[in-house]
Amino acid sequence: MDFERLQKQFDFILEMDKEKQVLRQTHIHGYERQETDAEHAWHMALMTMLLSEYANEEIDVLHTIEMLLIHDLVEVDAGDTYAYDDAGNASKAEREQAAADRIYGLLPEDQGKRLRALWDEFEAGKTPEAKFAHVMDNIQPMMLNAANDGRDWKRHGVHVAQVLKRNEHTSEGSEILWNYAREHYIQPNIHSGNLMQ
Amino acid sequence: MDFERLQKQFDFILEMDKEKQVLRQTHIHGYERQETDAEHAWHMALMTMLLSEYANEEIDVLHTIEMLLIHDLVEVDAGDTYAYDDAGNASKAEREQAAADRIYGLLPEDQGKRLRALWDEFEAGKTPEAKFAHVMDNIQPMMLNAANDGRDWKRHGVHVAQVLKRNEHTSEGSEILWNYAREHYIQPNIHSGNLMQ
Repeated sequence: MDFERLQKQFDFILEMDKEKQVLRQTHIHGYERQETDAEHAWHMALMTMLLSEYANEEIDVLHTIEMLLIHDLVEVDAGDTYAYDDAGNASKAEREQAAADRIYGLLPEDQGKRLRALWDEFEAGKTPEAKFAHVMDNIQPMMLNAANDGRDWKRHGVHVAQVLKRNEHTSEGSEILWNYAREHYIQPNIHSGNLMQ
Repeated sequence: MDFERLQKQFDFILEMDKEKQVLRQTHIHGYERQETDAEHAWHMALMTMLLSEYANEEIDVLHTIEMLLIHDLVEVDAGDTYAYDDAGNASKAEREQAAADRIYGLLPEDQGKRLRALWDEFEAGKTPEAKFAHVMDNIQPMMLNAANDGRDWKRHGVHVAQVLKRNEHTSEGSEILWNYAREHYIQPNIHSGNLMQ
């Protein structure tokens, strides 16, 4: 029995509890408070269980869920960067690489490498699983934002063009879900003026 | 394209956002606030990614993670019942069955049946995956409680015998993780008096 391995795993698991303290810009439905990174990850994993049938290419569901469960762990150190914060996004890559070195370095080497590879795959966005994971990561906050009458878009003065730019690859993961999101989340908020033209 | 199916799926996904408003008795590390059901589910899914190697019997990791992601959805209607609340636990089964009927009934029939079967499997606790899921469900709050100097046990006046009773089947899912939890979480809190004899 390798007790050192087990201890590293539990140390990592407890350290990652901090993901419950990273607040996103998106509010939960009802707008009472901001959503945490851990809640966001859970919600996307649940969505993947139910929506994987709409992926353009067949995906490995476990691989996709694992990617989503871990893809924000770097924010424990690097913090959440709002999708429409240009300055924050300029320094994001560097901050997150340093965070990944520390965080994945806490694990036994084989598992640290495996999780880091999953995160790199998500960031690169090239595999069918990574493309679908990005669909979840883009659509989940849009769904909440639309359910909250676009209040997070309004308070940040977000423009339609920014949303479309952020979603320029969403249809590569799922045409069907992208069409649904455009019709149900984006267009109504353009008409009501919550998204600026 | 079956738009009714897709709409049911998104209605369900948005309704389940309420899991972020169900508070558990366990506090996050640092004791700032109680943990939400959604955060608890995410944390256990992450733990399963890292700890499945310690299951007594080989487990299907996707199946186990899916079970953990959905096993508390009924609490959206039925609320969280504290493990050591005897009165609450007496009525828990009835409240949760009614919740399951409504909640899983929101989904397209095939998916509603699939998720309900996963939940029934978790509740029955007989398969290797369900046994391991219960290890996660028991050990995750113990880990947080121990990290918070046993404050949740103290404020509820929990006795050692209650913890051991709740964990009477934990070793059936993983001997190694049960031994770790007993040694690192339970025994130190008996010695320090946070768990009552």
